[in-house]
Amino acid sequence: MTAAADRTPTAPRRPPFAGWLGTTNDVTKTFLAAGRIEGLINMAGGLPAPETYPAEALAAIARRVIAEHPQDALGYGPIEGLPELRDALAARLGGPDLSLTRDNILVTTSGMQGLDLLGKVLVDEGALIAAQAPTYLGALDAWRPRRPRYRALRVDRPDFDAVAGLTGARFGYAVPNFSNPTGRLVPMPVRRKLAEAALATGTWLVEDNPYGGLQFDGEALPRLIDIAAGAPPVAAPGAAYEGPVIYMGTLSKEIAPGLRIGCMVAAPEMIAALTMAKQGSDLCTSGVTQRIALAAIEDGLIERLQPELTALYRARRDALCAALAEHLGTWFTFEVPVGGMFVWVVARDPRIDTDRLLNAALEAGVCIAPSSVFDASGEDRSAFRINFTLNPPERLEEGVRRLAGAVRRLAGA
Amino acid sequence: MTAAADRTPTAPRRPPFAGWLGTTNDVTKTFLAAGRIEGLINMAGGLPAPETYPAEALAAIARRVIAEHPQDALGYGPIEGLPELRDALAARLGGPDLSLTRDNILVTTSGMQGLDLLGKVLVDEGALIAAQAPTYLGALDAWRPRRPRYRALRVDRPDFDAVAGLTGARFGYAVPNFSNPTGRLVPMPVRRKLAEAALATGTWLVEDNPYGGLQFDGEALPRLIDIAAGAPPVAAPGAAYEGPVIYMGTLSKEIAPGLRIGCMVAAPEMIAALTMAKQGSDLCTSGVTQRIALAAIEDGLIERLQPELTALYRARRDALCAALAEHLGTWFTFEVPVGGMFVWVVARDPRIDTDRLLNAALEAGVCIAPSSVFDASGEDRSAFRINFTLNPPERLEEGVRRLAGAVRRLAGA
Repeated sequence: MTAAADRTPTAPRRPPFAGWLGTTNDVTKTFLAAGRIEGLINMAGGLPAPETYPAEALAAIARRVIAEHPQDALGYGPIEGLPELRDALAARLGGPDLSLTRDNILVTTSGMQGLDLLGKVLVDEGALIAAQAPTYLGALDAWRPRRPRYRALRVDRPDFDAVAGLTGARFGYAVPNFSNPTGRLVPMPVRRKLAEAALATGTWLVEDNPYGGLQFDGEALPRLIDIAAGAPPVAAPGAAYEGPVIYMGTLSKEIAPGLRIGCMVAAPEMIAALTMAKQGSDLCTSGVTQRIALAAIEDGLIERLQPELTALYRARRDALCAALAEHLGTWFTFEVPVGGMFVWVVARDPRIDTDRLLNAALEAGVCIAPSSVFDASGEDRSAFRINFTLNPPERLEEGVRRLAGAVRRLAGA
Repeated sequence: MTAAADRTPTAPRRPPFAGWLGTTNDVTKTFLAAGRIEGLINMAGGLPAPETYPAEALAAIARRVIAEHPQDALGYGPIEGLPELRDALAARLGGPDLSLTRDNILVTTSGMQGLDLLGKVLVDEGALIAAQAPTYLGALDAWRPRRPRYRALRVDRPDFDAVAGLTGARFGYAVPNFSNPTGRLVPMPVRRKLAEAALATGTWLVEDNPYGGLQFDGEALPRLIDIAAGAPPVAAPGAAYEGPVIYMGTLSKEIAPGLRIGCMVAAPEMIAALTMAKQGSDLCTSGVTQRIALAAIEDGLIERLQPELTALYRARRDALCAALAEHLGTWFTFEVPVGGMFVWVVARDPRIDTDRLLNAALEAGVCIAPSSVFDASGEDRSAFRINFTLNPPERLEEGVRRLAGAVRRLAGA
């Protein structure tokens, strides 16, 4: 986006927009426009299955909490979040080695706000972010107005050097559970490398964990923050966590995105800086949605929903992977993810350009997320991310059929 | 805030925080700490009277809208806001000369988010903002991470030159209705000057109007956006507004801040840019609070509440002004505001330093907002802002008594 052109021959010119707006990528605009295509099968976003939203339970909770806590729900609250919610999150997110207090917790207006606040407090123009590559598109969007430089953390490579990766960066960024976009579970040795490198270098290490609650097979691995907190010297019981890992969670995937409730766990000095930034972002998160979130946690809603949610998503993952193998196996390869919302589909033929595939796919009535949007340089056109949580199995298969048609058309062209 | 010191003798140093965090003013931190003082009378903030929150009505609305619109309320929504809410706001905020369509409306997560988004889309480091001086503290907070320069728009001076004021700025910023912090109603000739200067220079002109609904005496004046839209050539009926005024509203003062629902009205090119920025700020505003806001507007809740709200606040304004005249008249002067939430109290003696007064006031158990926080340079220590909406009359009087004690102590020192 550049300075607006004159609107009429006599109208004066508008001032220029901020420079970063000229750097946004066109695929994002394509996504925005795609929402208006009639009958489109959307397999691009990270959307939960809407039929899983516990609408009745949340409607009843909403009525109750506004009536019982009008002051908290309807007034201005503390910037950091309601004390009771911060306490509940500290209790919920702590671990055997991880002692958390209220001072370790910031309630955010969505996980995305957490990413925005990180950029605000840690990035000056040209500062370095070391991000697991490929990287979550939304994180790149959140940080773009700060104009950072990027270093790619290639955690999948056997020779990955985490200390070299984090040295000199303002922070490292990783999605260890079902990495966005690849859907991969970062294995234990790499987690240890990352946590130890954060401890050794002092660099902040952001662990973004929106999908941790969506594991379908196998056992959950320890979080980076657990590993870092477990390294000696272990903190005294009851003390606030002071380490370098900044953990981010959200209720969007486990309850409902419409609450826009996220949370950050970090050392108190980082929470204090993020709080200064949040003050200028929205003053405080809605008390209505904070009180709903607190009641939902206290009522055990997440635990009640989880078995059904993971069963539903496991079945959809299986349906998508079967369809991908059947219809796209000739051109693409993929790993079956053990959790999350996405399959990462990599072209076998280096001549396949997934930006071009997106356009052909949209014409065929299906939307996927090409690898370029997950690459800070915008250059990777060798893969795409495809979602399996939003659509039922038959629609997933129809989407993959349409996609296969688009690939055939491109390959024949 | 600077780079964190080593936490233990052997711990590595953390990366530096972003530079702007070192520029935040200490008074803001004093405010944050003041919230914890037992028995403090808070006359600093812009808080509504909590007893006016329509808790029962909103509790019922919340239950109903989540049950009836689970998809809208609980899912991810469009970045720009729910279409029905945008349409309702376009209808509500249009005027005889101001034709608005959905494309003119962005729903924001609080008015503060609107200010943050403005900074993101219009400010590069060192860019110029022309702000009505003194300026709303929260706006300075919102723009600080973008590191702008400021030009003061002294709209109260008879020789105020609006064209010179706006020329070369990325945008102008004004609070014409009960200006924050001065509580003044910007008079009609100055409104015309500002609107005409925006049209003549092409500079965006931000009209922040959180208090427009809180007028106690006299008739409402036309908004800047009405004046600008009424200038020839008048837009065709049904066309989107394309002018330079960016109007900002909020439901925080007229319904309840806990909803965190604000809105921006602007030319579609500006709404598109703000939408790109909002995507990286929180993806979308909570569907729960958007749906509640829409139902509250449709149910006429604002109109039902307004007579009681303005009567209550008028009585409190009168009580505060009587107490100020009685207890502080020797040292300070003020004008009685015809609306809003604040009285601006100016020292008669230039040796009075209101930053020092804040500290003395806190010791006496009352909090006010000194003029330094409303000055981009932080230098003005000649006045303070005092709120009359939060506290009942007897508490307002007690607060002013405490303040008078603090002044006497300072004057004697």
